[in-house]
This record gives sequence, structure tokens and C-alpha cells, in this order.
Amino acid sequence: MTQLLKAKKGIITEEMKRCALDENQEAEFIRKGVSEGNIVITRNTEHRSVKPLAIGKGLTTKINANIGTSKDHMDIQEELEKMRVAIKAGADTIMDLSTGGSVDEIRKEIMRESTVPIGTVPIYQAAVETIQNKKEPIVNMTVEDIFGVIEKQAEDGVDFVTVHCGVTRESVGRLKTEGRIMDVVSRGGAFLVEWMAYNNKENPLFEHFDRLLDIVKAYDVTLSLGDGLRPGCLADATDRGQLQELIILGELTQRAWAEEVQVMIEGPGHVPINQIEANVLLQKKLCHNAPFYVLGPLVTDVAPGYDHITSAIGGAIAASAGADFLCYVTPSEHLGLPYVEDVREGVVASKIAAHAADISKGVRGAMDADNKMARSRKALDWQSQINLALDPDKASEIRADRKPQDSAVCTMCGDYCAIKVSSRGLQ
Amino acid sequence: MTQLLKAKKGIITEEMKRCALDENQEAEFIRKGVSEGNIVITRNTEHRSVKPLAIGKGLTTKINANIGTSKDHMDIQEELEKMRVAIKAGADTIMDLSTGGSVDEIRKEIMRESTVPIGTVPIYQAAVETIQNKKEPIVNMTVEDIFGVIEKQAEDGVDFVTVHCGVTRESVGRLKTEGRIMDVVSRGGAFLVEWMAYNNKENPLFEHFDRLLDIVKAYDVTLSLGDGLRPGCLADATDRGQLQELIILGELTQRAWAEEVQVMIEGPGHVPINQIEANVLLQKKLCHNAPFYVLGPLVTDVAPGYDHITSAIGGAIAASAGADFLCYVTPSEHLGLPYVEDVREGVVASKIAAHAADISKGVRGAMDADNKMARSRKALDWQSQINLALDPDKASEIRADRKPQDSAVCTMCGDYCAIKVSSRGLQ
Repeated sequence: MTQLLKAKKGIITEEMKRCALDENQEAEFIRKGVSEGNIVITRNTEHRSVKPLAIGKGLTTKINANIGTSKDHMDIQEELEKMRVAIKAGADTIMDLSTGGSVDEIRKEIMRESTVPIGTVPIYQAAVETIQNKKEPIVNMTVEDIFGVIEKQAEDGVDFVTVHCGVTRESVGRLKTEGRIMDVVSRGGAFLVEWMAYNNKENPLFEHFDRLLDIVKAYDVTLSLGDGLRPGCLADATDRGQLQELIILGELTQRAWAEEVQVMIEGPGHVPINQIEANVLLQKKLCHNAPFYVLGPLVTDVAPGYDHITSAIGGAIAASAGADFLCYVTPSEHLGLPYVEDVREGVVASKIAAHAADISKGVRGAMDADNKMARSRKALDWQSQINLALDPDKASEIRADRKPQDSAVCTMCGDYCAIKVSSRGLQ
Repeated sequence: MTQLLKAKKGIITEEMKRCALDENQEAEFIRKGVSEGNIVITRNTEHRSVKPLAIGKGLTTKINANIGTSKDHMDIQEELEKMRVAIKAGADTIMDLSTGGSVDEIRKEIMRESTVPIGTVPIYQAAVETIQNKKEPIVNMTVEDIFGVIEKQAEDGVDFVTVHCGVTRESVGRLKTEGRIMDVVSRGGAFLVEWMAYNNKENPLFEHFDRLLDIVKAYDVTLSLGDGLRPGCLADATDRGQLQELIILGELTQRAWAEEVQVMIEGPGHVPINQIEANVLLQKKLCHNAPFYVLGPLVTDVAPGYDHITSAIGGAIAASAGADFLCYVTPSEHLGLPYVEDVREGVVASKIAAHAADISKGVRGAMDADNKMARSRKALDWQSQINLALDPDKASEIRADRKPQDSAVCTMCGDYCAIKVSSRGLQ
């Protein structure tokens, strides 16, 4: 039985209780959210080594870090180190997007060591194996190849899978007639678009959606319905292709719920600030409040090298407006595979966005840490400020590097410290 | 005659024409904005070596970088290097906040070399000289000391000055009766609060506001009415003290306009995301659309070491809602005086926020660069992507560091590049 089925039956599971504790909520709040589909609890029934994670309405905004090898850069040890650094910096989930080397082996290593739920994009493995093992182009990938990988990954204990079920003849057709600058920028989306065109067939993940549901249901794998047609630049945002895909994802959400399969919806991408709130509203309406998992959104296209910042801006705005789950973006986005340090920077930026949004949307207790920090600043208690910092090592390093003559203050103002001066003036 | 007086008389000045060219607007648009007070053109009549800069409604969002020595760290050459780096990275103005060493000498060096308008906070110099030259505490600073510094700085060619005229018995009284966690975190505000309490007198910058207007009018120095009672933590945002000061600043704005003195209003500080839009609206209403110059706002208190990111989030939201001018914040904020590299990071983050907001608020031509970047990405034209980047050096460095086997793509996806694959699929 999936968590969704149990929730519908009124059962409060151990998983719900654990998530309730983590979220400072009542277990019944979690159960109700799961039963209505606006909360998912992601953990494969076979993946007992990780804590179940609740994502959705009324809960803290979660963040995901993508790791994984590519053909140009494959080093399992480095990917495991990225995972450790990401989790330490606050990542709530890890997605393994490996496409280089033995994808199975890498995933198994990651799953063995991770303390947080793991997500994948099964079509990557299906594509890689078509090329590496069958020595054939991606378009020769069979329907059995795709579902075989999904089945294997579900058995292996993957907690959530991205499946681009909304990339259909209908949505791709609308994308083509409207025209775009960047066309399709999702890897999974692009594989399917090429496959559909070459084979002149409908997307198997859409056509055989019931088969997909049967597989994931057996292990309570959460479906993350991917946005294969997400915009790759501001100019393409919120267009006909994107919205057509979202409409279809909303329909599939209801079909999944009817089978008691848990669902999240993935969202853009590259979106101007003034369109972000509307994007969240549209997702919530069209997908009946299924949790929204956004990639960014990046609020400008011109800042490669700093896309952790462009996405922190967009992520904070999206989560304030109701997005539930942020996929981090690293400084190396659009330029190359991230290194370990990029992963850390990306997670911290995303964590800042999520936390600022939690304060904005009134998540229970979200401002407690900020108030403690404010009191420590007022008291000029530097050790406490460092302990309360999101990244204590970084704060400590900057402070230590600039030693003031008077250890009560800092080198910015020294004796002219406003806190010191105003404490006298306001006595 | 100030630009405001000329604008009111219907005169289109050379300064308005130059600003119009920079902004891709008609000169009459600038004149009208200046005449109504919703645009300022900041340049001291004696500071001919810099380009006049227009800030306000309908124009690109501008960014300021604070530099300056402190008692703990005084090295003029380093401050000049910060200025060069800030201007190269895109700062539209520089504020010299020096409080260490010979403040006059440092300011003159900065003003000589700068290509952008320079702002100051004259009360810093008055306070520093009271301590350094008179060997007395700040509270013994005289009214003549304060106005003497303002006069000297105006004569020297300073383009805009921050004056905390709204820190009055009335606003401080309201702040005290309500209570705050952080009390007063503005240095200038704190000096005045202590001075007023010790001397049992009204704020001289408020009491002798007409004298201030006479001085700045003679050189067309733009007044930047400071928010001495700005919140220093999220919990203190949008409170009684802050709002009382803003009401007073609105009244002073109209008195300044009656004397044809140009005015901007400074704003917070630390503000939760869901209060930012209201803060901008309040400033626009209470100050009759005078340009709004915000410091941050920081959207969480818990990220020392990353406050360039917390302020980029707040700045982007504020500017999207109508703020006109963003003061950068560096990674070393709350921890110590920034180094050169911190200054660069701070300016880039602020520039990203300003640019993303310009797209959101529909500033003419703001999305052109983004569309060019999108086309370069679609064409997999890497050199063009680097040239179009906000920081080409950084983008180039990351790309060069991760050389893909196939130079058409990047190490993130290699052969699985969505752009490459989808170009085949959508033919």
C-alpha cells in the first residue's frame, strides 16, 4: 500500500509521524495533505536506510541537488563527495543524473551511502544503455528498454523518478507551431522528441502511463512528472507548448491519484520575475495542488557563472508564491559539470531561497532562527552569530580573516558600530 | 540653477540629453520625470569629470557600491582598487563611507579618479573629526561641525549626500515605545540618536533643514534622505519607528522640491519577502514618487557570508516592485570590511538583481541581451555566450576549466546535449 492509499483510508503511518516531527506539525496534518495529494512522502518501500521526506503544502520548502557523472567526466568518488557536501550544506534530496560510466553501479553506490531520498531520470539510463550496450542511436531505444530501466530502478529503491509524460504529439505540436528561440532544453524531453519524430509514435511514457503506474505503485515511488518542454530562456517562458504540457500533467496527476500513486509536478526553468507567481498559480490550479518542484527559475539569461544567484532569486519568489521544492542550480550551470565546490555554493544559495520563502509564506517556526541571530547581533555575541549562521565555517572564516582591534565589534565600523552607539543613545 | 529648477521651467539641459541617450529614452521624458521629482540627475555642478546619472521612474535600475576605510583597515590604494573593480563590474555610483585615516584626502582621491557619481554620508566625517581632531566624544560634535562638513563636501563636488533628517524626537520616540530587537543599525542614525539623547536637542539635520537645502542647492547636490531607523532584522521591519521616519521624509521631500532640490529616499534593510512590495508602495505614496534607494533588502538574517545573495533576492523583488536604485551588499556584510574580491561579488549580485527587475518592470530594451544570449545558446556559439555574459571573465574561466571532448557542447551533457538532440527531433 502506498502512503497515499493509507492516508485515504485514514491510517496515520510511521512515515507520517516521522515527517510530522521533522516539520513541527501534527501527524494528522501530514495524513490529510497526503490524502489530498498536496503533500507527498517520498521514500521507496525498499529504501529503508533513508528518512522519509514530506514535501508540499504548509511544510518547509525542500531543496534538491543534482549530481552525477557525464561522458566527459566520470569519477564515482567525486560524485559521492558531491553528495556528502550537498547533504551537509542542507540538501533534502539528491538526484543522480549520471550519464557516464556504469550508471547502475554509480546509482547503487549513491543509494547505499545517502541519508536522504534519491531521485533519478530513468530515460537517461535507457538512452545511455542504448548507445553504450546496444551501440545504437537513442531513437532505437525500445519501449521495453524504457520500462525495463524504470522497473529496475524502482526495485533498486529509487525514491522518486522524473518521467516526461507530458511531452506528447499534442504539446510538441503546439510548441512547434508557436516557435521558440531555444526549443527543447530538457535532456529527457529532447530524447523523447527525437524518438517520437524518428519513430513516428506517441511518447511511450504517455501512451503506457498505466504500466508506469503499476511499476511505481508497487514500491511507492513518487512520480515527478517532468516538464520536458520547459522554457530554456526568458523569451520562451509561459508559452503555448509549456502550458499544453502542464494541462496534460494535470490530467495525468488525477489518473495517478486514482491509482494511489504519489505525484509531484516539475516546473521551469527560465522565467521573468513578473511571470513567476502566475506560473505557480497555474501549476496549482491545473494540477490540483500537487506539490510543485521548480528548476530555478532563472530570472535572467545573461549571468553564466552566477546562475546559483539568478536561480536563488527566482526560487525564493516561486517558493514564496507556493512552490514546494527547489532544484538547485550551481555556478557552473550552462558552462559545464559542477565541481564539489560548485555543489556547495549551489546548495547554500538554494537553501537561502527556501528559507527566505518559508518566512514569507509563514511556515511554522521559520523565523525563529532569524530572531535568534538578531538577538545575538544586538548582544554583539560573535560566537553565537557564527553558530547560528547557515554556513558557520564560511562566516567564521571571514570574521577570523579580518580581526578588529576591539573584539566586540567588526572591522566595518570599529568604534563607530551602530549597535554600540545606539545602545548608549537609547538607554 | 538645479536640474529640477530647469526642468520645471521646461528647459531640456545637456545633462538630460546625455542621460536620455544612455537610457534609450527621449530627453523630454527625462525632463518631465525630473520636473515631477520621480527622476533625479545626480552630478554636482563642480564635478564635471563624471557623467551625469539619471535615477528613477521608467529608467534602468541603478546600483551603488560602498567603499571606504575604517579605523581597523585604512589603505587608500586598496579603496581605489575597490572603486575600479566596482565600476568595471557595473556599479553606477560609488559611496565613500571612509571613517579611517584622513577622510578628506581619501574622498578627494576617489573623486579625482571616479568616472561615476560619488555619494557620501557627511555625518561620518563630522563624527570622525570630532574624535580625531577635537579628541572629544561624538556627542560633543556641534551643529557647525556638521554643516561645515556638508558645505566642504558640496564644494568639493560630492554628487549626492545621505542625510538622516527623519531621525527626530517624534520618530525615535515611536521606535522606543514600540521596542525592537535590533534598535538602530544605521551608523548615521545611531550617531544622531546618541547626540540627541545626550544634548537633549532635536536632530540638527531636521531642525535646520532649510540651511541644508541652501547648501546643496548651490551645487545641485542630490539629497539622499537616509533611513536612520531602518530595520536591522526581519522582526523589526515595517514597524512604527520606520514608518514614522518615512512619513517625515515624505514631508521633507516636498520642502526640498519647493526649493528645487533633488531628492531620493533611502529604504531598508532587512525585510521578509512578503513585506517588500508594501514597503515600496508606502515609499512611493508617502514620498510622492521620489526615487527609492534601497539597501538590500536582506530577506533572511541567518546567512552571514552570503548576504550578497540574500540582498540580490530582496533587491530584485524591490526593484521589480518599483525601487529605482539598489545599494549592493557584499559577502562580508555583518562580518567585516569587504576586500576587493567581495566588492566584485557584491556588484555582480546586485547587477543581476537590477537587470532581472528591469526585465520584470518592462524597462525599454532590457531583454535584448537575454534574447541574444538565448540565440547564442541555441546556436551552441560558445564565444558569443561568453561575450554576452555579465562577467565574461568568470564564464570563460569556468568553461576553459572543463574542456569537453566535443567543443560544440559542454561537460554537463556531452553528446546528450538537449539542444543538439532536440534540433534533430524538431526538424
